[in-house]
Amino acid sequence: MKNNWLEHLKEKLKTDQYSSSESERYRHSHDESSHHAVEPEVVCFPESKEDIQAILETARTFGIPVTPFGAGSGLEGQAIPVKGGISLDFERMNQVLKFSPEDMQITVQPGITRKQLNKLINRQGLYFPIDPGADASIGGMAATNASGTTAVRYGTMRDQITDMEVVLADGTIIHTGSKAKKSSSGYHLTGLFTGSEGTLGIITEITLKLHGIPEHVIAASCTFSTPRECAEAAHMILLSGIPILRMEFVDALSISQVNTYGNYGIPERHSLFFEFAGMKKAAEEEAVLAEELLTGLGAENWKVAVDAEERSLIWKARHEMSYAFRHLKGTKVTGGDVCVPISKLPDLIDYARELIEESALVGGILGHIGDGNFHTLIVFDSESPAQQEAAELVNEKLAFRAIELGGTCTGEHGVGIGKRKFQQTEHGAAVSVMKNMKQLLDPENLLNPDKIFE
Amino acid sequence: MKNNWLEHLKEKLKTDQYSSSESERYRHSHDESSHHAVEPEVVCFPESKEDIQAILETARTFGIPVTPFGAGSGLEGQAIPVKGGISLDFERMNQVLKFSPEDMQITVQPGITRKQLNKLINRQGLYFPIDPGADASIGGMAATNASGTTAVRYGTMRDQITDMEVVLADGTIIHTGSKAKKSSSGYHLTGLFTGSEGTLGIITEITLKLHGIPEHVIAASCTFSTPRECAEAAHMILLSGIPILRMEFVDALSISQVNTYGNYGIPERHSLFFEFAGMKKAAEEEAVLAEELLTGLGAENWKVAVDAEERSLIWKARHEMSYAFRHLKGTKVTGGDVCVPISKLPDLIDYARELIEESALVGGILGHIGDGNFHTLIVFDSESPAQQEAAELVNEKLAFRAIELGGTCTGEHGVGIGKRKFQQTEHGAAVSVMKNMKQLLDPENLLNPDKIFE
Repeated sequence: MKNNWLEHLKEKLKTDQYSSSESERYRHSHDESSHHAVEPEVVCFPESKEDIQAILETARTFGIPVTPFGAGSGLEGQAIPVKGGISLDFERMNQVLKFSPEDMQITVQPGITRKQLNKLINRQGLYFPIDPGADASIGGMAATNASGTTAVRYGTMRDQITDMEVVLADGTIIHTGSKAKKSSSGYHLTGLFTGSEGTLGIITEITLKLHGIPEHVIAASCTFSTPRECAEAAHMILLSGIPILRMEFVDALSISQVNTYGNYGIPERHSLFFEFAGMKKAAEEEAVLAEELLTGLGAENWKVAVDAEERSLIWKARHEMSYAFRHLKGTKVTGGDVCVPISKLPDLIDYARELIEESALVGGILGHIGDGNFHTLIVFDSESPAQQEAAELVNEKLAFRAIELGGTCTGEHGVGIGKRKFQQTEHGAAVSVMKNMKQLLDPENLLNPDKIFE
Repeated sequence: MKNNWLEHLKEKLKTDQYSSSESERYRHSHDESSHHAVEPEVVCFPESKEDIQAILETARTFGIPVTPFGAGSGLEGQAIPVKGGISLDFERMNQVLKFSPEDMQITVQPGITRKQLNKLINRQGLYFPIDPGADASIGGMAATNASGTTAVRYGTMRDQITDMEVVLADGTIIHTGSKAKKSSSGYHLTGLFTGSEGTLGIITEITLKLHGIPEHVIAASCTFSTPRECAEAAHMILLSGIPILRMEFVDALSISQVNTYGNYGIPERHSLFFEFAGMKKAAEEEAVLAEELLTGLGAENWKVAVDAEERSLIWKARHEMSYAFRHLKGTKVTGGDVCVPISKLPDLIDYARELIEESALVGGILGHIGDGNFHTLIVFDSESPAQQEAAELVNEKLAFRAIELGGTCTGEHGVGIGKRKFQQTEHGAAVSVMKNMKQLLDPENLLNPDKIFE
C-alpha cells in the first residue's frame, strides 16, 4: 500500500519534486521548538497550486496526511508531520505574483520569507512590518497568525491580509477575500483560514497590505527595579496615547544572559525598549513625552538613539535574546506565550517569576508588553526528562492562569502541539464549533492532523 | 399552528416582552434602505441571553424564522424579516456589562448605540472611533462589519472586537474569542461571526477595543476641478504616509444638494475633507504637509479649523449629505457601496458618474476615499418603478465593475438583500464553503433566512 501511494504521487511530479532522503526527512521532522520530532515519509516541493491539487488527490485516494512546511521556524510544532505521510515544503513557491506599490499591496506565494519580501519592496519606500523575530515564511506567518514586536501598532497577520487563495482538501480552489482594503461581503473566510495552521486548507497565495517606511525612527531604552514597574510603566505609555511603534520588556536575568553571550555590558536591570516612528517632528515629540512620563515613574538609564547603528545597539539585547538562551550546548529551551488584558500583566509576570523560581530552572521573561503578550524562555538539560517536565509545568500553569484572567494560552505562536491541552478551557463550547468546521472542510482529517485539537 | 407557536413563545416571556401591534410590526418591517418592507408576526424584546435561548427554542420547535433588529439604521435590509416570524429587538439589551478603562476595553450588550457608548466612555478620555454616520447599535455594526469615516485609521468593526458571546441556533452559548488584545488560539470565530448579519448565531455580548481621544484634532477641506483629481490627491496623501484620521470625498453635485438643503454657501466643487489628529505638534505638522502636497496638486479653497465649532462647519457638508438627499418628499434614495484598490478609484468614480448620467436621475458620489470605498446616492420617484429600476441598474453595473477590478460589492453596508446577487461573482467557489457553514450552524435556516444568500 505504501509503495502504491508513493508511486501514485511520483507519477504526478517531476523527479526533483519529491525526496525521501534521510537528510530531507530529518530536515522536515522538526521546527525550532522542543516538540518531539517525527519524520515524514516523503517531502514534496510543489511549484504551483496544480501540484498541490495533484498531491492532495493522492492524499485523498490513499488516506495520507499532508503537513505544510514553511521556513521551519515555528515554535509549537505546527510543521511536524506527527502522523507521517507527506511534508509539503513551500520553498519553490516563493514568488511575488503581483506587486502594486500604488495600492500599497502585494500578492505573494507562501514560501517567500518576510526578509525576502522586505528586500523587494523597501526600494519603493514600502515595508511589511509584521516581525516575529525569525525570518519566517509569509505562509507560515499567515497559518499561525504571527505578530511580534510591531503588533502594538500594526496588529497581527490577520489584520494585514485581504485575500488568500486556498486549495481545500477536496481540491477546490477558493479565494477567501478580495483586493479591497475592507469588505462586508460574505463570511470572513480570510480571518478563519489565517491562524488555522494548515488544518482547513493549503494556502497558495496571500495578498498583504503594505505600509510606508516611517520617515524617522527613534530607539530608546530604560530600566526599572522590578518587572512590575516595567509593566506599569508600559501600561501608562499606552494610556497616554503616545503612538509607539514597538515597546518590549526584557527582564534582568535575560539581559545578563545576553551579556554572557555577547559581552555587551548592558545594565543588568529589568528593561523596556522602545521605537517611536513617523514624521520627524511627531516621533521627536513622542520620544520626549515618553521620557518625561517614564522618568516621572522612576525609570533609570534612559538612552535614546536616532541613527541606524546606534539604534541597533540599543535593541541588541532584545534581538539576541532568543539566541542567548538557545546557544548553550546540551540544553533546550521551552517558551510560554501568554497574552492577557494589560492591567493583568504585572500580576501575571510576578506569577511567572514565582513559577520559574519554584522550578529551580534558569528562565527569562520578555515580550510584547504593549499587547499584554509575553514569553518565558526556560532552559533545561536536553537529557533530563524531569527538567523538561518541570519547564513545561511552568508554562502550563502560566497558560491556565492567563485564561483565568480573560486571556489566551497563545498570543502569537499558535496552538500546534503544545497548546492543544488548553483549547477546551480557553474556548469551551466553541471547540465543538471549531471541530465541526474542521470536519466540514477536511472530513478525512488529511490536513495537518492532530494539530490544534487532539 | 400559528397560534400554537405564539402561545408557546408567550409562556416564556413577560407580557411586555412581545407585541404584535400594528405599530411595532410596522416599525420592525423596514430599515433605512429602499428594500421592500415585510412585517414580522411578532416583535420580541429579550432582556437576557436566556430570553434569547427561550425564543430560539420556540423557533426550533415550530420552524419559525428569527430576525435580529438593532437600531434599524441598516442600508441593505438586514433587519427586514423577509420570511415573517419573529423580530428580535435588542433595545432592552443595551447595557454596559464591564467597562475596563485600564485595559481600554469594554463589554456591552448589542443594543447599545455608538453614541450612547461614547457618552459613557468619553469622560475617561476614551472613545470608540468607528463611525458609520447613523447612531447604529453596536450589535448591528458588528453584524454588518460596519466602518465609516475613521476606518482609514482604525479599520472596521472586525478589527475592534476581541470577543463576542453568541447564542447558536441550537441554543448553545459560545464565546468567539477572549479579552486578550491578540490571540493565535483556535479558529478565528470572532471574525466569522462579525459580518455574518445574524445568519449564523445571535450576538448577545461584544467586547470592544477602545482608544484614547486624540489630544488635538485639525479639520481641513479643499476642492478640485474633477472627481479624478480628488481621487488622485487622496491616493498621494496615502502614499505620503501622512497619518490622517479621516479623508472623505464629496462630489460637486452632492455639495450643491447640501447647499439647497441648508443654505450653507459652500463652494460647489468636488471636495476632500480631512481630519488630522494626535499629539498637538504631530497633527499640526501633518496638516501643513498635507496642505503643501495638495496645493502642489492643484487644490483650491484650502480651509483649516482647530476649534470644535469651526471644525464642524467644515465637515457640515459631509455630515449632512445623507439627509440632503433623503429629505425630498415623494422620493427615495438607493446607494451603492463599492470598494476597490485605491489605484482603481479614479476610473471607477468616472464610471459611476457616467452611469448616473445615463440613468438621467439625480445622483451624488461620496465616500471614504482613503479606503477605496465610495457610495452613490441616487434619488428616484418613490411611485416610479421605472426610475427605481434605473437607479438600481446603476448600482448593479457599478458593483460588477468593482468586482472585476479586484474589489467588493460592499465595503461596509453588508450584503443583506441588495448585494446577494453579487455573491457568486465576487466569491466564486467560496460561496459553497460559506453556505456549508450556514448549514452547519443553522441547519433549519431559522436565523435571518434569505440574507446574504438567496
